[in-house]
Amino acid sequence: MRTSIRLSILGLVVIFGVSLAYAGFSKPEDAVAYRKSLMLVIVHHFKSMGAMVQGQVAYDKAAFERDAKIVAAVSDAAWEDALTDGSAIGSSSLRASALSDKAGFLAKAKAFHAAATTLAAAAEKGDLDAAKAAFGETAKSCKACHGTYRK
Amino acid sequence: MRTSIRLSILGLVVIFGVSLAYAGFSKPEDAVAYRKSLMLVIVHHFKSMGAMVQGQVAYDKAAFERDAKIVAAVSDAAWEDALTDGSAIGSSSLRASALSDKAGFLAKAKAFHAAATTLAAAAEKGDLDAAKAAFGETAKSCKACHGTYRK
Repeated sequence: MRTSIRLSILGLVVIFGVSLAYAGFSKPEDAVAYRKSLMLVIVHHFKSMGAMVQGQVAYDKAAFERDAKIVAAVSDAAWEDALTDGSAIGSSSLRASALSDKAGFLAKAKAFHAAATTLAAAAEKGDLDAAKAAFGETAKSCKACHGTYRK
Repeated sequence: MRTSIRLSILGLVVIFGVSLAYAGFSKPEDAVAYRKSLMLVIVHHFKSMGAMVQGQVAYDKAAFERDAKIVAAVSDAAWEDALTDGSAIGSSSLRASALSDKAGFLAKAKAFHAAATTLAAAAEKGDLDAAKAAFGETAKSCKACHGTYRK
């Protein structure tokens, strides 16, 4: 077991080509890339659910549940680490106010995570009406944060 | 409720500036961006766990569990949709063989998801030894796919 783990870690270093030492996002550009990746993944799976909520695509419990679980998990991302000072730069759509008001941003991220968790629970039950309502609440939590902290 | 949902969907359209119609990734560049985002999120949280597995950072059950849940959820991503024909392009590190052997790629993605799910279960229990073993197995599943389908 010990050898197996050691080999796997060696494999990891080979795979990722980097030290495993974890230090959050010391480079602002890395924080931007992480945030953009989170958003792209969230948007993709949110749109997938949205199409089912709107009836543009037939409701598929397994697909909806997968989308909801991904959004719920990712909504619990390392937001606090990703608010690196000086990272409202370049192509980032984050307002600098998010960095000067981290507590405010994190409260909205927490509300998003709570809404997305409720959505995932409804999705797991296969309760489409509850899922629609929770989807709406989750969308509101997106909007609440974007309205304040997104350019 | 109905009004609330309708408003939220309007909000969504405003938020994302796009139709909610979901059509997978018709543009190869969109599939590349989605895959890159998944990988960036996975690598971030995998490295975070790796630092704890290696003892570079003190084990923190809540942090490890969050990382593991994110990796487990994202490992169940829309891989099949993301293998858009002609998407082994540009800065993508995907080999074209993944697109001509989708079943092979998806089998490796499934193995990754299974390993990551076991890891998340161990993380939830707070069983560090089991989590270390599962982390090693998950790393192997990363390597198995990268070794075959990554440039």
